[in-house]
Amino acid sequence: MKPAVVLLSGGLDSATVLALAREQGFACHCLSLDYGQRHGAELNAAARVAGALGAAAHRVLKLDLGQLGGSALTDSSIAVPTSGVQPGIPVTYVPARNTIMLSLALAWAEVLGAQDIFVGVNAVDYSGYPDCRPEFVRAFEALANLATKAAVEGKPLRIHAPLIDLSKAQIIAQGRRLGVDYGLTVSCYQADADGRACGLCDSCRLRREGFAAAASPDPTRYCLDLT
Amino acid sequence: MKPAVVLLSGGLDSATVLALAREQGFACHCLSLDYGQRHGAELNAAARVAGALGAAAHRVLKLDLGQLGGSALTDSSIAVPTSGVQPGIPVTYVPARNTIMLSLALAWAEVLGAQDIFVGVNAVDYSGYPDCRPEFVRAFEALANLATKAAVEGKPLRIHAPLIDLSKAQIIAQGRRLGVDYGLTVSCYQADADGRACGLCDSCRLRREGFAAAASPDPTRYCLDLT
Repeated sequence: MKPAVVLLSGGLDSATVLALAREQGFACHCLSLDYGQRHGAELNAAARVAGALGAAAHRVLKLDLGQLGGSALTDSSIAVPTSGVQPGIPVTYVPARNTIMLSLALAWAEVLGAQDIFVGVNAVDYSGYPDCRPEFVRAFEALANLATKAAVEGKPLRIHAPLIDLSKAQIIAQGRRLGVDYGLTVSCYQADADGRACGLCDSCRLRREGFAAAASPDPTRYCLDLT
Repeated sequence: MKPAVVLLSGGLDSATVLALAREQGFACHCLSLDYGQRHGAELNAAARVAGALGAAAHRVLKLDLGQLGGSALTDSSIAVPTSGVQPGIPVTYVPARNTIMLSLALAWAEVLGAQDIFVGVNAVDYSGYPDCRPEFVRAFEALANLATKAAVEGKPLRIHAPLIDLSKAQIIAQGRRLGVDYGLTVSCYQADADGRACGLCDSCRLRREGFAAAASPDPTRYCLDLT
């Protein structure tokens, strides 16, 4: 099996990407980033998902992006919006997060001799983050193919973003087909210590609407009764 | 003064870049990465250089790239070559290091509202690393201008690599002109705890040859008598 690096946050999207990468026959080396997010529930979920979906390895790198500030996800003094998805780039945007995570995936890919990196960015049902757009993914691939020893030696690197054009409902349908247990995943920006979701942040709203649109039961555990 | 982010390793090149950025009138926010390098002398040097050259701020992010392995600089079981600069990419190459460091600089630039990042990469007297080439720098700038909120809002980001076409002797001449005290800097891959250089690794050799070619006294403190 060829090795690949899969960025795994512990949320719905990256769990689906892991299942898709496995289906394509890759030995999946999952990478998570402990970047100072508001809660550890997401990283616990990443470990569960990696185990359940047969990852070849799972590594968690620690990098305190809170030292740089600038996001509701790393600065607890900035409130997470809960009144619905608004136009524009929200305060939950973490500056350069996907650039940083892809860079770390690139480093590991190079050490492993892997030519494939999988990332769960999505440009349809997403929160308006600039680093989730197809042109961003293509620009990172171009960069990667200049940045590494492997590239210099003529081994191209591919960035796979298999969810980029899918709706949340389509992503969920793919995951269901591949047996992903979404009850293991945590998408909420402010999950509680037990991993229960708020149900009201943008990430929860997009996820809930996805399960509804997919006519699929929502296995998420919520703090509040949202029915 | 406009803010800029300056990547500062503590070596000769990045100290010169800081002096050049200051000369251009930027308020320099210096970023160093504690990535698990073999010794702390370089980071101590970065702090001294930031202080001596009037940085507006200096921050050290910690990220253990040794968890990913693959380099003599982060894995003490791989020896640092000392027999002279060879063709090809050496074992001191740290996979994706410049991509990672520029990504972190990009994050901080976005938080600061800075549109300028300075990096001391050099494609003349260098160690053959792929991520020191002009085409790499241009590809990162293209990526940065798709990756951020500022870019979406029409504020372009520039990656400045003012040393890219200079020889080591020319770099030293620039630094001398601007009053850089190279005695504060540490370039050695395996400096001792006191910050003294081995004199024999590729980085020491390029530095020594640079001082000789610039006909400039070499203020480096060496472990051995190299005369």
